[in-house]
Parts: sequence; structure tokens; C-alpha cells
Amino acid sequence: MRAVKIAVLQLALIMLMVLPVRALDVEISNFKLANGMEVVVIPNNRAPVVTHMVWYRVGSADEVSGKSGLAHFLEHLMFKGTSKRAPGEFDRLIDINGGEGNAFTTSDYTAYFQRIASDRLELMMELEADRMQNLVLTDENVLPELDVVREERRERTDNDPSALLGEQIDAAMYTAHPYGKPVIGWMSEVAKLTRADAMAFYRAHYTPANAVLVVAGDVTPEQVKVLAEKYYGVLKNSFTPQPRVRTPEPDPIAARRVTLIDARAASPAVQRSYLAPSYSASTGHEALALDLLADILGSGTQSRLYKSLVIDQKIAAYAAAWYSGDQMDSGTFGVYGAPNPGVDVAKVEAAMDAVLADLLKNGVTQQELDRVRNQAIAERVYTLDNQAALARMAGVALTTGLSARSIFDRDVEIGKVTLDDIRAAAARIIVLKRSVTGVLLPEPQTLN
Amino acid sequence: MRAVKIAVLQLALIMLMVLPVRALDVEISNFKLANGMEVVVIPNNRAPVVTHMVWYRVGSADEVSGKSGLAHFLEHLMFKGTSKRAPGEFDRLIDINGGEGNAFTTSDYTAYFQRIASDRLELMMELEADRMQNLVLTDENVLPELDVVREERRERTDNDPSALLGEQIDAAMYTAHPYGKPVIGWMSEVAKLTRADAMAFYRAHYTPANAVLVVAGDVTPEQVKVLAEKYYGVLKNSFTPQPRVRTPEPDPIAARRVTLIDARAASPAVQRSYLAPSYSASTGHEALALDLLADILGSGTQSRLYKSLVIDQKIAAYAAAWYSGDQMDSGTFGVYGAPNPGVDVAKVEAAMDAVLADLLKNGVTQQELDRVRNQAIAERVYTLDNQAALARMAGVALTTGLSARSIFDRDVEIGKVTLDDIRAAAARIIVLKRSVTGVLLPEPQTLN
Repeated sequence: MRAVKIAVLQLALIMLMVLPVRALDVEISNFKLANGMEVVVIPNNRAPVVTHMVWYRVGSADEVSGKSGLAHFLEHLMFKGTSKRAPGEFDRLIDINGGEGNAFTTSDYTAYFQRIASDRLELMMELEADRMQNLVLTDENVLPELDVVREERRERTDNDPSALLGEQIDAAMYTAHPYGKPVIGWMSEVAKLTRADAMAFYRAHYTPANAVLVVAGDVTPEQVKVLAEKYYGVLKNSFTPQPRVRTPEPDPIAARRVTLIDARAASPAVQRSYLAPSYSASTGHEALALDLLADILGSGTQSRLYKSLVIDQKIAAYAAAWYSGDQMDSGTFGVYGAPNPGVDVAKVEAAMDAVLADLLKNGVTQQELDRVRNQAIAERVYTLDNQAALARMAGVALTTGLSARSIFDRDVEIGKVTLDDIRAAAARIIVLKRSVTGVLLPEPQTLN
Repeated sequence: MRAVKIAVLQLALIMLMVLPVRALDVEISNFKLANGMEVVVIPNNRAPVVTHMVWYRVGSADEVSGKSGLAHFLEHLMFKGTSKRAPGEFDRLIDINGGEGNAFTTSDYTAYFQRIASDRLELMMELEADRMQNLVLTDENVLPELDVVREERRERTDNDPSALLGEQIDAAMYTAHPYGKPVIGWMSEVAKLTRADAMAFYRAHYTPANAVLVVAGDVTPEQVKVLAEKYYGVLKNSFTPQPRVRTPEPDPIAARRVTLIDARAASPAVQRSYLAPSYSASTGHEALALDLLADILGSGTQSRLYKSLVIDQKIAAYAAAWYSGDQMDSGTFGVYGAPNPGVDVAKVEAAMDAVLADLLKNGVTQQELDRVRNQAIAERVYTLDNQAALARMAGVALTTGLSARSIFDRDVEIGKVTLDDIRAAAARIIVLKRSVTGVLLPEPQTLN
């Protein structure tokens, strides 16, 4: 993992290191505390607020088989109090200090954050450091929270046919790698999670050396360092984190299809997802090329899919493409569309296939590449100006095997992507045997 | 697990128990040694030979994520010698005593067996008891065996398009339950298995209380008991087996399809597999009804699929159906067929669908049920007359949650299966959302 290597170097220097990469006056400091906890500081003093985040290098892909949903369940339970703070006190203290906070879990990381007046940063650190080691769980507060999580799954997944289809597509995409299971967990497994499971997961994954502190906003790296050492630096590691090696997904050999018939679906839809490298797991410009290709194919009304299916042929209500490259081990590249009323979803799929076939045969034009590259650069300017977005980018990078520097590397590298890079990425990734096609139908079309 | 409950009862009686079920003069004794090792004896003195089997209640579905193939790899390594016997001596002793032996691994069990003159039974027990606790593995004999297993995978799976498709179908069928991974293991995971992995698995799963001894042939239960106590009864358990609870597979919600294009395929083929209960995991007569229904649909030239697709429509080279119900947690029900040269595989699939639709609408006839039931009973007579087959049935039963008695229960219960049982089982199981359809194509038909 590149991030770790750089961090070790930084530790050896025993000093604050300001990365020599700057963009839009964004400065990023990245150092480690003596106990191995990594720290990123992104100063910005336009407003007297800070974004304080603690990220753990653990997510649903690190759960053992049969315990899906555990990383996310623990995220909920982290608000249940510690040996020093009663349940609810964490939220109450943030609230009465005018802040707001929350948390999120993905397959690769679990993160906790608060946005608050910069003079309250110390309190946030005190609270997060406390719950990094002193979590107290009782059956009285664990069991009701399990109901909350189950309800969350019902609302977000089980009652949403598109989400259900997405879950089935992921399950069909991955045969061995744990990205095939949902972050929220299978209901059958979530329902059986226990306090003991949560405490074991907490003890196995929550320790300073497995965490990343990100502070963005109205602070200096020096201020953060003093506070971080006071609150996080004094914590002892309860274990030594090992390299995060998930079992690799075998090379895909067979095209897969998933058809979900669900009367609750608003309209039919089709989605094709190809297994692709992620930024962290790719070499050269392949990930950037896929990012730009997704824009050329399917971002906005000027994109190939939209122009062909929605404007010219008038068969689709929408048509788009995506590249998802932020996971640690692999990503997906895909296209999707929904037919206009009265149009068969198969016609939309065939039209998407035709657009892809033309792309594979003829490549993209320099004009298209320039257009999406300029758009991407403009979007980057906007993103880099957003304190919370920057903090999040840093956290994602440092918990998925990338360096803090990589955030800015992309701004440089995007200018180097060529038509050949895009052609090569398309030829390697847009191959049916790498794909899962998901079809959502409100009503049965063919059935036994 | 029913088998365990009965066994505990038998232990309490502290005596040999001959089950009060007899069929075709088959007698089966089932008892436990003091250390919890279960014993089944099936006497038959027509020839002076015995089949000696030791079954462990562990298979590939008990491996942790990322270690697929480990149960099977250990099976290979069990022939590598012990603290008392040099590598190769096991096989050599069987050989010079005129016997033959082998082993096999499935998702639910691992079994070792020898067929040998009945006066050599004691030696077999000595050898099996020795390697149950004294296995010695060295890098020198583990690493070459890993090459053997990898070559086995290449030969049996990677060079066989039908096997590859089957593997992909299983992977698509199971989203959470470990039956989705191949017994031989994913090559990417097999290649990384180590001596330490094998020893850990051995220590975690091989102990008398987790094993079943089955002896069939020219012996009496009393003889077996004396020898079993001498060799197996003296072994101390290194751990206490826990209930085998695998994470349940969520109810299927979406039909899946897998298309494998492989130039090595002899001809196109289509296979539809429905997730179904197994004998162990079913209630009432559902498993038996599915067994009989598979025969009605697709066993022999009188079956519906064969008559319709091969004889009447002349579109298929073959067409058949199966029910696979011997796994512990779930099984599959399915149909398959291959088009005649020049016929589109889609036409064969549509014809299979039509046969299934007719079945679901109109059920089966009493005449069909009587025909396949009589066939099944005749086959049972043949099977129960086979010493090795009987031993295997007993081992499967006792390692998949069934009782020894269940072997004979089926002979009684099969007479009670009604047309309504078959109609109900078909209606519940033959539902597209429970299915994975696998298509094998020698050449691309539609591609981007």
C-alpha cells in the first residue's frame, strides 16, 4: 500500500511534512503519530469551522463469512457510550456545541465525522479518542439498534427494487471476493448479529494504527498535531494491523444476467456492469481513462448514449454510464438506461450495445476527450474548494491503499490521458464475459 | 441434527442398537463410542470382504472465506504419513494386503475408504486411527501435492467447459451460503494454500467426535465394536464439535443467467438449475416428490423432456432433468438439453420452458407417478444389494444431518408420495426467480 510506505518515510523524518503538491492553493499535511495513527490536515481559514473525521481501515469486505453487515452495525453502536460517556452524550455534546456529525461505512472503510466551530475541535478529538478504545455495549442498547439497522435495510434496500437489483448484480459479479456482499448485510445474517460479534469486530479493527485522522478547515497542521498527540497519540495499540489482503476475484469467464421482476418498480430498466480495476488497483492511466470514457459515453446530454437513445432514437427516458473506481481492490464500469413507455427494455439494451460496439470499433474523438477532460477539471476545481469533500477524498485515499498525494496527482495525470489509453481501457474492460447485466421489470414478460 | 439426537439416545443405552428397520435383509447397526465417534455397521457375508470408511463432518462449505479448496487439499495430504508411518506406507500396506482405497471430498463431508479382505479390517482401523491424530506434514510433501491439486483442477474444471459452466452456475446460485464455491477451490485461492492452513484445518475438524465409522460387509456389529473401541475408542478428542451452522441463503428474488462462450465446447447446451430443499433440509415429502418429478420430466426415453424435445420435435440431441438432494443445507432441481446440429440453443430452452409450463399447469398423471416410483423402487433394490453403495448412503446420511434410519425410511415414504405432493413441490420450486440458467456456446452469438 503506497500510503503506508510514504507514511513510514514521514515517520522516519519525525517532522511535519507538507506535501510538495499544491492545487488551487490547497495544502495538505500528512504525518503519523508515534503509535502509527495517520493524520491529514487540510487548512482553510475562510470560515471558523472544521471538519473532523476519524477513518478506520475496515469495512464490510473485512467481515468474515456469515457476518455481513457487522462493520456497519458497529458503526451504529459507536454512538452507544463509553466507560466515560453515557449513551447519547456524544451526540448531545456535539449538538449543544452547534456541530453536526454522522458516520458511514463502505466495503473498505468506516468513518466518523463532525463539522463544528474550530474552537471546539479539541472536544471532538476527546470524544473520538474515547470511543476508539472505551466503547461499552450492553444488550439493552445493542438489541434495539439491531432493529434500527434491520429497518434501515428494509427502507433502503428491500423496499427499493433498484437497490435490490444492484445487490443481486454485485452478488453475481463477485464469486470469491467479498465485494459481492452488501455493506448493509444480508437480512438473514444481520438479524443474527450480537453484542459479542460487535465487540469482537471492534477489538479486532479499532486501534490508532488502523485509523486515519483527517482535519480540514480553520486550523494549522501544528495546532492539529498538538491536539492529536494529546488525545490520539497517548492511546496504546491493542493490536498491530496486518496488510489487508482480500481473496482475489478470479478473472471473469462468463457473462451473467440478473432479471428482477418487481411490481413496485416504476419502470423497466437495464444496467450493464463490467468488472474493472479501481484507482488503487490499476496501473498507468487505465482508471483515469475509464473515468473519462464513462463521461464520453454517458454523462450529460452531449454524451453518446444520451444523444443516441434519448435524443435521436427517442426510445429511452434516460441513458448514462459510470465508472466506480474508489474501492481498494476493484471497481466497475457500466451503462444503464430505461425505455420510454411502450418501448421494450430489450430495445434499449440493444441500442446500448450498438453504442458500445461502435466505441470498440472506432474509438473516441479528440474533441470528445477534450470536452470531458475540461469538464472534469472544472468539477475538480469545484470539489477542491469544498472543505468536507476534500477531507473525504483524503480519507478515501488513505483507507483504500492510495496516498494523500494521489488526490492531486490526478489533476496532473488527467492531462496525459490519450485516445489510445481510452481505446486500450475500453478494449480490455468492455467485454461481455466481464459483465453482469441487470434487468428490472415491473411485470413478468416471460415466465414458466 | 436428527442423527445426533438419536445417537445420544443410543449412547445412553450403552449398548449396540440394531435399528428396527429392515429392507431386503439389510440390517444396520448404529452406535457411538465413548468419545463420541459414531459407528455404523452393515453386515453382509456373501463375500469375505469389507468396506471400511471413515467420514469427517467437514467439507468445503466449512472453509473460511479465501481458503476454498482447503478441505479437499487436506484430503490429499492425509496420505502423507504420520508420526508412526512414513509417507506412502499407508497406500503400500493396503496394496500388499490386496486392498484398494481412496478418498473424496464434497461440500459437506470428507471420507476415506478401503475395500479389503475382512481379516485385514483391523489393520485398516489401525491406519485410519493413526492418521486421525498423528498426521505429519512437511513442506517437502505439501508443496508438490499442491501442484497435484492444481493440476487436478486444470484437468477436471479449467479444461472442461461444462464443468466451468457448472461452477459459474453454482457461484450465481448462492449469494451468501458457501455452496457457491467449488469443492476443488478457486485456483487463485488454491495456489496460496499452505502447510499451516492444512494443519489448522486438520486440528479444527479431525477428531473422533466429528467422525463416523462405517463398516459394511463380512463382519458382525460385535466384531466391529471390539475393534473400533480398540483403535478409535482410545483416541481423545482434541476439541468438541459444534453444530454446523452455515449462513442461510436468502430467498432468491431474481432469475439469473450465465453464458459461457468456450471454443472447446463440443456443442451448445442449456441448463436451468432451481434452488431447492435437500432431503436433510426439507419437510414432508417435498424432497421425494422432487426426486420423482425429475424422473417424470427427464429420466430416460419415456420422460416428458426426452419425448418432446428429442423424439417428437427432434430439436435436441438430449434432454433430461435432475434432482440433487444429498447436501446438508439445500439442493438443486434442474433441466438441461443440447440442440441438434443447426438448431439454436434458444429453441431448446423455449421447448424446455414449454414442458415446464405444461407441468405447472396440468400436473403429472398417476400413470407417470406409478412408472417412476416402480423404477425408483427397483433401483433401490439394486443399490441396497451393493455393499459399497450402502456404506456410502449411511455415511452421507450421518454427515448431512440425517439418521441411519433415514436410508430405509425412503423406501416406506416413497409409496406415500401423491400427485398433490408433486404438484405442490413443482409450484414452489420451479419458479424463475429461484433459478440460474446456464448457456454454453462454442462460438459467440451476440457480442459487443
